[in-house]
Amino acid sequence: MEEMGEEALLIEVRRLFASEGDDVILGIGDDAAVVDAPAATKLAWTTDMLVEGVHFQTGWQSAEELGRKSLMVNLSDLAAMASQPLYALVSLAIEARMEAEYVLDLCRGIKSGCDEYGLRVIGGDTTASGSGLIINISAAGSVSGDAMARSGAAPGEAIVVTGALGGAAAGMRLLAAGTGDAYPGLLRAFRSPEPRLAAAMAARDAGATSMTDISDGLATDLRHICAASGVGATIDIASLPHPPELDAACREHGWDREALALGGGEDYELLATFPAESVDGALKAIEQRGDVRAAVIGQITADAGAISVIAPDGHESALKTRGFEHFRHD
Amino acid sequence: MEEMGEEALLIEVRRLFASEGDDVILGIGDDAAVVDAPAATKLAWTTDMLVEGVHFQTGWQSAEELGRKSLMVNLSDLAAMASQPLYALVSLAIEARMEAEYVLDLCRGIKSGCDEYGLRVIGGDTTASGSGLIINISAAGSVSGDAMARSGAAPGEAIVVTGALGGAAAGMRLLAAGTGDAYPGLLRAFRSPEPRLAAAMAARDAGATSMTDISDGLATDLRHICAASGVGATIDIASLPHPPELDAACREHGWDREALALGGGEDYELLATFPAESVDGALKAIEQRGDVRAAVIGQITADAGAISVIAPDGHESALKTRGFEHFRHD
Repeated sequence: MEEMGEEALLIEVRRLFASEGDDVILGIGDDAAVVDAPAATKLAWTTDMLVEGVHFQTGWQSAEELGRKSLMVNLSDLAAMASQPLYALVSLAIEARMEAEYVLDLCRGIKSGCDEYGLRVIGGDTTASGSGLIINISAAGSVSGDAMARSGAAPGEAIVVTGALGGAAAGMRLLAAGTGDAYPGLLRAFRSPEPRLAAAMAARDAGATSMTDISDGLATDLRHICAASGVGATIDIASLPHPPELDAACREHGWDREALALGGGEDYELLATFPAESVDGALKAIEQRGDVRAAVIGQITADAGAISVIAPDGHESALKTRGFEHFRHD
Repeated sequence: MEEMGEEALLIEVRRLFASEGDDVILGIGDDAAVVDAPAATKLAWTTDMLVEGVHFQTGWQSAEELGRKSLMVNLSDLAAMASQPLYALVSLAIEARMEAEYVLDLCRGIKSGCDEYGLRVIGGDTTASGSGLIINISAAGSVSGDAMARSGAAPGEAIVVTGALGGAAAGMRLLAAGTGDAYPGLLRAFRSPEPRLAAAMAARDAGATSMTDISDGLATDLRHICAASGVGATIDIASLPHPPELDAACREHGWDREALALGGGEDYELLATFPAESVDGALKAIEQRGDVRAAVIGQITADAGAISVIAPDGHESALKTRGFEHFRHD
């Protein structure tokens, strides 16, 4: 970094993200970007910060994978609002010892994610970090029709998740232990999450009443929906979808598969609620348009704030698992 | 932090920043904010990251001052585009040892800046930091008419700055040395910069051809205008405006006053260019509408990329001073 210098790196980064034209009046390189956002649409806007040593270690994935994932985390938030991504701003805090090529690869990963999902990086900030790499991405997308909030769930509705749960948390544990070679699918779940944008649009069109993405773990994210909607929920443990390799990894390492599915974060799947009469159509629409499995995992109840789990043997108990909280030590 | 917990802190922060109503359809607290931005305007959008140990030490100012300044840095970018601030997103990475009350005071400082300049925090992210406090704020504003870019300067035009230069850099040096009590104005320049929003609108209306804010130091920021516009510049050293206490502080500490004015960063003043015929009117308009002094400090030349300085004795030489670069050691 010191040899290449900030200005030289910025020139490369600006070339990579050059995006003027159409609705981008001024892209990266001025004091601020200026966009002429599509008229007659609302904008959804989100921001996420990834911190080395908290969310990732640089050795856990390639620089390109890390860059792409940093963007995907934001796109998952936009998906949860059924919002189509438009723009992103990228802030990086970089240690002086870091290779400029690493930073460029990180940006290439962000760019490839942008190309894949049709959005553009229009600005950003680079600065020095005293300790560790920090990546903050803010992203905006368009919203057609009503915004898809967490607050619309009602008693009797079905709770639906896309994809499988617990894979990313297991992948992170494997990477931390340095023993993940036997479980490429779990590593991929942690390194390369896919934002469920098409599935989210399908869910909205199929009548979803509330939606969020599973970033902090099912338990925490379902609590968010319950709190925002003033409802409770019952989860049927036997119905939780697991990724293929999770069973074997849990057996080998003595992990609790259900705890990973309920409490492990970073799956970036969708969690949504549907009225009973529309749930079958919703599952089909999500699978067809979103190219991802969807499953009913429980029901919304009237008991505000209470979340219970039904074990495979039929025993019902209060949900104890908490999702990932950044400030807890455990 | 550990005792209060992330959820409890977030509840307080959400209460502080509650902003639904009017054009904010969903504020802080969902997966993303949703806004119905004013129609028929373009949006300017910027992001800035402040890193403990690089941009600040927590002991250098109160938490509220730090929060307010984090926002002001963004508003200064919006001012440079002649953009009226609308929304902000706040990401914080916080060490577990940090008091929750400190974080709340930081947010109160951001909120007070928002109230002062008429914008709203509509979302954000909080996470743990392995080492030190990281603050990233993204802000958006409306742009009426043409965007005020860095690229419109032409040979023969006057170079104008608002306020005074070198004060913030001197203030930072004093704080680093722990000896600033005799120079409250210099400390204030570092701790409490004011974005020149009203001055920027006045400058745009008075015919500014290019504009930027002085965040990296006059030398670097003028280079940005020259590079974007394909021009050169001559600066008259004797005309550089200094804050009242700078002379005395430079004498006491043996600092080079001109080097601070040219190379010290974080003044957050405006740097703009005007055709010769409109510069007198522009100076008056900035002073009246912007409530800040403005001065002509030099001229744009046709010699692309060349910046020279004229010393008080009339001697002209190439500008050697570089502005603040985060990755250099000096």
